[in-house]
Amino acid sequence: MSPAIDNRPIGVFDSGIGGLTVVHALRRLLPKEHIVYLGDTARVPYGTKSHGTIERYTLQAGALLQRYDPKLLVIACNTASAHGLPALEAASPVPVVGVIEPGAEAAAAAEGPVGVVGTLATIGSGAYEAAIRRRAPGKAVHSVACPLLVGLAEEGWLDDPVTVEVCRRYLAAMPAEVHTVVLGCTHYPVLKAAFAQARPGTAWIDSGEVTARAVAAKLGGGLGFHGDAPRGELRILLTDAGSRLQEVGSRFLEEPLASVEVVDL
Amino acid sequence: MSPAIDNRPIGVFDSGIGGLTVVHALRRLLPKEHIVYLGDTARVPYGTKSHGTIERYTLQAGALLQRYDPKLLVIACNTASAHGLPALEAASPVPVVGVIEPGAEAAAAAEGPVGVVGTLATIGSGAYEAAIRRRAPGKAVHSVACPLLVGLAEEGWLDDPVTVEVCRRYLAAMPAEVHTVVLGCTHYPVLKAAFAQARPGTAWIDSGEVTARAVAAKLGGGLGFHGDAPRGELRILLTDAGSRLQEVGSRFLEEPLASVEVVDL
Repeated sequence: MSPAIDNRPIGVFDSGIGGLTVVHALRRLLPKEHIVYLGDTARVPYGTKSHGTIERYTLQAGALLQRYDPKLLVIACNTASAHGLPALEAASPVPVVGVIEPGAEAAAAAEGPVGVVGTLATIGSGAYEAAIRRRAPGKAVHSVACPLLVGLAEEGWLDDPVTVEVCRRYLAAMPAEVHTVVLGCTHYPVLKAAFAQARPGTAWIDSGEVTARAVAAKLGGGLGFHGDAPRGELRILLTDAGSRLQEVGSRFLEEPLASVEVVDL
Repeated sequence: MSPAIDNRPIGVFDSGIGGLTVVHALRRLLPKEHIVYLGDTARVPYGTKSHGTIERYTLQAGALLQRYDPKLLVIACNTASAHGLPALEAASPVPVVGVIEPGAEAAAAAEGPVGVVGTLATIGSGAYEAAIRRRAPGKAVHSVACPLLVGLAEEGWLDDPVTVEVCRRYLAAMPAEVHTVVLGCTHYPVLKAAFAQARPGTAWIDSGEVTARAVAAKLGGGLGFHGDAPRGELRILLTDAGSRLQEVGSRFLEEPLASVEVVDL
């Protein structure tokens, strides 16, 4: 017996538009799925807010996405995953996948010591280290905060000598024996070429890709099938639409932002 | 008759800690003045928020500073100056000085076309261009948004080849005949050496310095005089105290942050 087709959308939530790299990975791995993306661009960034506030915002986002009858929710934001995942899992009638656990799982399975790069807030929270050590106690984890990289990604200086030099400086703080590094920020997948140039011979764990694989595993057979349409629909909901939205957003999604709606949270 | 001594403090408000460069300039020009600084670090950045919200936050900050019985208020934040100054002027019993008008006045007085560098929000608002043209109609103004520079200033890469290269790229968009450029962001004074290397032969208008001079002019004779103490007191109030506060804040203030209190706004 083959599993039933489930045409309900996947709901994806982020504090801003960096989570569109996760949507990109989802659409590559699961092209037939409908996706509803919610970016809380009016209140970004979450990294500077308190635990209670981030939890409340995450629950609000989950409640809004629930109106679209999703079959699964993805928290495509490191800060919201670190602070809001348990509360949203408790409140949500459908499964919830965060971005930290899939990356931590891949890191725990790697040989030898591993590295994690991310924003100040993500690295400061210790969420990746904790999640990796739950799976591989005693694993050596070297974390480095890279505050300039979100700006470089949003500015579009992707495969650029300045960005390579900035990556090189940050990665210089990581011991030579680290051969596997988690890109622990949803903005970083677009900087993969710069990271690779800055530290050749390193395996990079792309949290968008591993999250997409975790979603596929969680859905099991319950995938969508939209007749002959090559791809599922993508709806993008934002709490505020800034002037550079198309330019910056399409860089992360790796396709134009076809439909954007501004919503209240 | 000499004017009366006025020992009330100067109240300074910013969305974050970049405004400490204005406090630095004030303490250099008017060392005897007491200063109360309020940084809304819990809600920074303002650049992505709506006009009404910024106006409301600015009024809240003014009301809080009023409790310290200030003789004058400074809005040491470009975004709050652009959106909140008229409302705060109407509400405040004491004079209010913003950071845009003093920089615009100095630019209007310069020879030939002028440049303005700032954040996306400041440049996008057109506030400097409008303020310059009110004083010098027909003046050519070339504005360039430099989104990466706040991050570089906060990271402390001040006199650094990466920062010089980033400045060089942004300034390349400015015509060669521009010989005077307004540093239209409170973070930029600490990057002056990098700017100077990136575009030699340019005169830089430091908005902190010109704002301090505007404050001195507005106070007239009503300066403080604290006996033999070499300097007035500085109180720093923040709505949230992050982990890198001392490191980043003292870079802008150019002295250690001696007293920091966390307050609610």
